[in-house]
Amino acid sequence: MGYSKGIERLKRMKKINTTPPSGTRDFLPEDVRFREALFRSAKTVFETYGFLPLETPAFERLEILSGKYGEEGEKLMYKILKRGDQEKTGEPDLALRYDLTIPLARVVAEYAGKLPRIFKRYQIVPVWRADRPGKGRYRELVQCDIDTVGTDYIAADAEIILAIADAISAMGIQQFEIRLNSRKVLTGLLDAYGVQAAKQNDVLIVLDKLGKNSLEEIKQELKNKQVAQTVIDELMADLGTKDAEDVVRKKVASNETGRVGLQEVDEILKLTEPFVEKASIVFRPFLARGLDYYTGPIFEFFSPDLRSSIAGGGRYDNLIGMFAKKTIPACGCSIGIERIADIVTNKKERNERPIVNVLTLVWNKNFMSDALQLATELRRTGIATDLYLENATVSKQFEYAGKQNYEFALLVGPKEKESDAVSIKNLKTAKQETVPINQIATYLRKHLP
Amino acid sequence: MGYSKGIERLKRMKKINTTPPSGTRDFLPEDVRFREALFRSAKTVFETYGFLPLETPAFERLEILSGKYGEEGEKLMYKILKRGDQEKTGEPDLALRYDLTIPLARVVAEYAGKLPRIFKRYQIVPVWRADRPGKGRYRELVQCDIDTVGTDYIAADAEIILAIADAISAMGIQQFEIRLNSRKVLTGLLDAYGVQAAKQNDVLIVLDKLGKNSLEEIKQELKNKQVAQTVIDELMADLGTKDAEDVVRKKVASNETGRVGLQEVDEILKLTEPFVEKASIVFRPFLARGLDYYTGPIFEFFSPDLRSSIAGGGRYDNLIGMFAKKTIPACGCSIGIERIADIVTNKKERNERPIVNVLTLVWNKNFMSDALQLATELRRTGIATDLYLENATVSKQFEYAGKQNYEFALLVGPKEKESDAVSIKNLKTAKQETVPINQIATYLRKHLP
Repeated sequence: MGYSKGIERLKRMKKINTTPPSGTRDFLPEDVRFREALFRSAKTVFETYGFLPLETPAFERLEILSGKYGEEGEKLMYKILKRGDQEKTGEPDLALRYDLTIPLARVVAEYAGKLPRIFKRYQIVPVWRADRPGKGRYRELVQCDIDTVGTDYIAADAEIILAIADAISAMGIQQFEIRLNSRKVLTGLLDAYGVQAAKQNDVLIVLDKLGKNSLEEIKQELKNKQVAQTVIDELMADLGTKDAEDVVRKKVASNETGRVGLQEVDEILKLTEPFVEKASIVFRPFLARGLDYYTGPIFEFFSPDLRSSIAGGGRYDNLIGMFAKKTIPACGCSIGIERIADIVTNKKERNERPIVNVLTLVWNKNFMSDALQLATELRRTGIATDLYLENATVSKQFEYAGKQNYEFALLVGPKEKESDAVSIKNLKTAKQETVPINQIATYLRKHLP
Repeated sequence: MGYSKGIERLKRMKKINTTPPSGTRDFLPEDVRFREALFRSAKTVFETYGFLPLETPAFERLEILSGKYGEEGEKLMYKILKRGDQEKTGEPDLALRYDLTIPLARVVAEYAGKLPRIFKRYQIVPVWRADRPGKGRYRELVQCDIDTVGTDYIAADAEIILAIADAISAMGIQQFEIRLNSRKVLTGLLDAYGVQAAKQNDVLIVLDKLGKNSLEEIKQELKNKQVAQTVIDELMADLGTKDAEDVVRKKVASNETGRVGLQEVDEILKLTEPFVEKASIVFRPFLARGLDYYTGPIFEFFSPDLRSSIAGGGRYDNLIGMFAKKTIPACGCSIGIERIADIVTNKKERNERPIVNVLTLVWNKNFMSDALQLATELRRTGIATDLYLENATVSKQFEYAGKQNYEFALLVGPKEKESDAVSIKNLKTAKQETVPINQIATYLRKHLP
């Protein structure tokens, strides 16, 4: 292909930076295994809930992605230059996947007849965002989404919440609080307090910080946003009472939209309560989340350990139909799986058992064939086996086997060969035995951990 | 995030192209399951051979990739535009992964101390090449590579061949011929026939077509390449004999490099023969492959059905050390796994059993909680269950269950609820029973296929 020229050039270079690109990571074997096991536990839960896998390309045509993620998204998107003769235009025509929702919307429009009418899909794949890199912030990060497309049935929302709760538990996070609200409760609330349309977003952003920020801070922020003093006073009075949530609930119930929102919340509480620890699913009338596209119930999974959200989602009935040019109801949730990977990695000792527990040694070059034959036969019966792949003395090979944490070392030398046998050394106990070659697989199966 | 603005714009657009980008594919649930199962069977074989997984980012810094894949590679590479304020320069600073070898070389240089001294790794992930799209040619394609880095022991080469043979078989391809040669045999051969250095590559490219093209065509091509007439005559004379391979073998053995090459070939034949069907591994003295970087044994897996190669590899001792600036011996092989996916897809009826065999119906909206409770309890015991997620009559729900190929439909209505029972209908036999709710999981486990 032309590797050689490149190598010549490298030799003339002083220092070569071999780290992965900024914000991305290489995963060495142990990391890959750990992450795969983590993703698999989520996947298994989603499958038992009837969610189906979907795969879309790593990049999309630029017109599919552009204009969908706001000004910031436009800046953080990885755009791909046109190729060949077009490269010199300096123009992009593709961009790397930025989230999993827009590709889902494209797929729903493209394969309308081929997908189940109610399409429940999961996807656990990387997306790319050129965010400022930092601790726990990556530019290549795995996203883990489930969505139910094509129904506005409230059981779909409840099912999403239960599937996420089970997936998070399966990944080893036992403690979380599910915070629940509805976009309609928020609308009702703003109406009830008489917030002017132009100030509604500002007010929601500030109120979303309730619990994190003090009431005094909230008050100051509302002032800074130039919210009408009467609104601030009324809010502060209600929030200052002991039974603030009840007071707010009553306010919300004073108008139709608010009442519908409360009904959504109550239905979900009723549907999910048998399955989540009491008090671990709570109504939070000020929970706002990404207002922009949610239309019904919204929720987040909050980790008290981390003091932050580890999953979030809701109903968004106006988004998935964008390419199909019709309204397609949908609800979904995204798990912050990279964050969970970081937590679980730090918490647990990742003392996973290695997959290969057996090393076949080579008596000397003339016995290479015997060693390879032994290893291959074991492999073909499903016993994972390594082969010592260097010219070395047997004692050096034994030493290596011990260091590398194998359980057993096998050896066929002249003596063993003559009697169709294998010497097997248990590297933990140093016990050595001779086993007939046709019994070695059975022997290993019996003694392997 | 700003989805709304994008949606407004979409509404004004006439027609939206929702196909995936040229040369890429969407994989709907059935395809994903099929491909995952295929990749998993290769993976399982590699693991039993002691190969370890590795993951690198989808893109690399441009300087890592550029100059490594020749002029063509430079044109086909997907380059990523700088971001933010730098976007307007029209310059790229990253490029999508083009193969798995250069990233491996980078990893070997970067994590020298952290990797096993002899590093056996597998990787089954997409690469991106802007090839002209066509039948079976994709711009986003999964590559499947195994490589053993850090040893020049010939058993490593043999082990790679056996692992690939087993992986290909595991993927359902039973018929293949392993064609074996050594780069050194080719050098010896060119020396023996007295081909001038400047013509050696040309001659090898022509001779590589032996078996595909007729001798007459080969002769003409050599003439077109202006190879010396004496060389052409001698080659044609030898190739025209009945025992051409023996004649050529003798010629190769007339010089030192050729002899070393033959010895490599014979050792691999001896090491692998116990495990591959007789006559399915053959010496092919003119097999050339990607000459550019191979240094020792080379081989390809040829499918007689397809009349083409489905895997290929060899030893390349000068490549992996490029970033570490030292020689690191290595050998490896790449499986054309997309091609195999295409063959297996076309050949087999992909009658995989669906994962979800149970559908829980909903008597009416007031029984939603009972239905969700039943489904969730089954899911938590590991029985995959769907829930009917629309407002519909029970008879319409039964009809849907039958059409969707579920095995069982479950229903809790007022009668069942009173007696803590579930109605269960076997959708294949139409037999209906009532089972106590606390026995339903056991019942299903017993009756599910």
